Amino acid sequence: MKGVLVGIDFGGTNIKIGLFDSQLNLLGKSSVASGVDEGPDAVIAQMVESVKTLLAEASLSQGDLAAVGVGTPGPARYKEGIIIASPNLPLFKNVPLKQSLSAKLGAAVVIDNDANVACWGEFVAGAGKGTNDMAFFTLGTGIGGGLVSDGKLVHGCDENAAELGHIIIYPDGRVCGCGQKGCVEAYASANSTAKRATEAVESGAESALKKVLDENGEITSKDVYEQLAAGDTLAKEITDGTAKALALLCINVLHTTEPARIVFTGGMIAAGDVLLNRIKDYFNQYIWPLKKETVEICFATLGKDAGIIGAAALAR
Amino acid sequence: MKGVLVGIDFGGTNIKIGLFDSQLNLLGKSSVASGVDEGPDAVIAQMVESVKTLLAEASLSQGDLAAVGVGTPGPARYKEGIIIASPNLPLFKNVPLKQSLSAKLGAAVVIDNDANVACWGEFVAGAGKGTNDMAFFTLGTGIGGGLVSDGKLVHGCDENAAELGHIIIYPDGRVCGCGQKGCVEAYASANSTAKRATEAVESGAESALKKVLDENGEITSKDVYEQLAAGDTLAKEITDGTAKALALLCINVLHTTEPARIVFTGGMIAAGDVLLNRIKDYFNQYIWPLKKETVEICFATLGKDAGIIGAAALAR
Repeated sequence: MKGVLVGIDFGGTNIKIGLFDSQLNLLGKSSVASGVDEGPDAVIAQMVESVKTLLAEASLSQGDLAAVGVGTPGPARYKEGIIIASPNLPLFKNVPLKQSLSAKLGAAVVIDNDANVACWGEFVAGAGKGTNDMAFFTLGTGIGGGLVSDGKLVHGCDENAAELGHIIIYPDGRVCGCGQKGCVEAYASANSTAKRATEAVESGAESALKKVLDENGEITSKDVYEQLAAGDTLAKEITDGTAKALALLCINVLHTTEPARIVFTGGMIAAGDVLLNRIKDYFNQYIWPLKKETVEICFATLGKDAGIIGAAALAR
Repeated sequence: MKGVLVGIDFGGTNIKIGLFDSQLNLLGKSSVASGVDEGPDAVIAQMVESVKTLLAEASLSQGDLAAVGVGTPGPARYKEGIIIASPNLPLFKNVPLKQSLSAKLGAAVVIDNDANVACWGEFVAGAGKGTNDMAFFTLGTGIGGGLVSDGKLVHGCDENAAELGHIIIYPDGRVCGCGQKGCVEAYASANSTAKRATEAVESGAESALKKVLDENGEITSKDVYEQLAAGDTLAKEITDGTAKALALLCINVLHTTEPARIVFTGGMIAAGDVLLNRIKDYFNQYIWPLKKETVEICFATLGKDAGIIGAAALAR
């Protein structure tokens, strides 16, 4: 079989690898611990080993490989394929990942930011399919972003475009991990949602979340959505704050690159329609009446495979 | 001479036309009253007549024409070249401008939004020259926008991208002409700057602008900058409000498409360095410390010719 593609989703915890045919049909996948404490050489050797195993399991050889795509945490010089440094990869300093992998696997390698790669996966094969312009938000510890404009990923002048979690929506507001004040990430990421709930409970707000905090020592965004489902008033207020911040983010991105679809992913979308519908409510409340907007706001559909699919699709 | 280009800047008041060689050197230009009250047929005939006159003056013929570009007010279906309707063009309803001009001039015609066209002019031949990614803001009655990403104008899924004046920076803030609350346009356009000053004076703020209001019956943004230069405290506060809003806009656009250069134009840039430096001050104060940003914030250099140059460049 010719034209076999590999998609690698390189995270601080796991390396996920998928083997695909040229039509992006999955031929096999694996997930191994990243072992980043062993250093870059060991990690790259592990990637190569895993690819070879997947090829063998599919009765394929290295000669069938057309190209390899890798999504990595930033910051990196993606075009050159060099990981400069990353909070989750402490031993990686100026690692020429592209060059090393390419030499060892005998195939072309492309590297991009992990959020961009997942965005590209959803664009090509998931919730963004059929559009030409898409915005993508990952609601996790922080808020990551990806943008597709006119069918292409937006990279920006220094490969740091689509840092959409750091759009300022409340100037002089809550301090964000990035050092700015009032970023959407400081209100609406899973962590910030949990943190706002914790602060409210600690300030004496009446809520079933107080018991959660007392018993577990912390409140997670999952707890917030569970109590929301149970009818808790504070959980509703906190969710509304998250949804409003995300709706403002959608409006601002709409007025910038005008995506046809805005796709949310990350652990927090497990909250389901109760969150999605509140985002849409606030969007409709805050968007201009000047023109009927047709943008669809929806959840991602590929789950955790978006990274490997997107990486393989980028390689293609 | 082969490859002659025409750039038309079609406004509600004037039609400006430039004739260029294939290297965008100006061969001749003219400006005539739009006469939009005469209806679309008369306006199109006027455009054709003006082009023919310019060709004759340059000892050229219609056969030398390679292509024509037109910047028009929106909303329009630009790709199709149809002006749907426009507040400044009351008699224009579904006018097939592209088709009519093309038939009458015997050359290919491209049409785009007036802000996009001016943005493209600055990108190709003005303040954005040499970059690949640029953001462009016009500070006039409202705030218009244009975006170049990876060397291309961003049009969006429905040709309404880069409505950058309607990015919300103060949720639930001042009401904008578009119906949203808290748009940057509601704070930092020339009109909004003047309006905030007028409101402050009417609320009893001490300022030399009170005398201006009493004598002229209104305060303009020009008055604000004149009094700022004279050391007026209120004029400084109002200017700071404008500069802060524009700086937040710059930060949000930087985190979206990551331009290398952000270019301001419009009457208000006559305020000069005092405004530009305040925008930069606020930008530096509000941007993350995470990464040194190299974006240049500057003023446009082509003045009122940006439209004809951009239109000709788009046609090329």
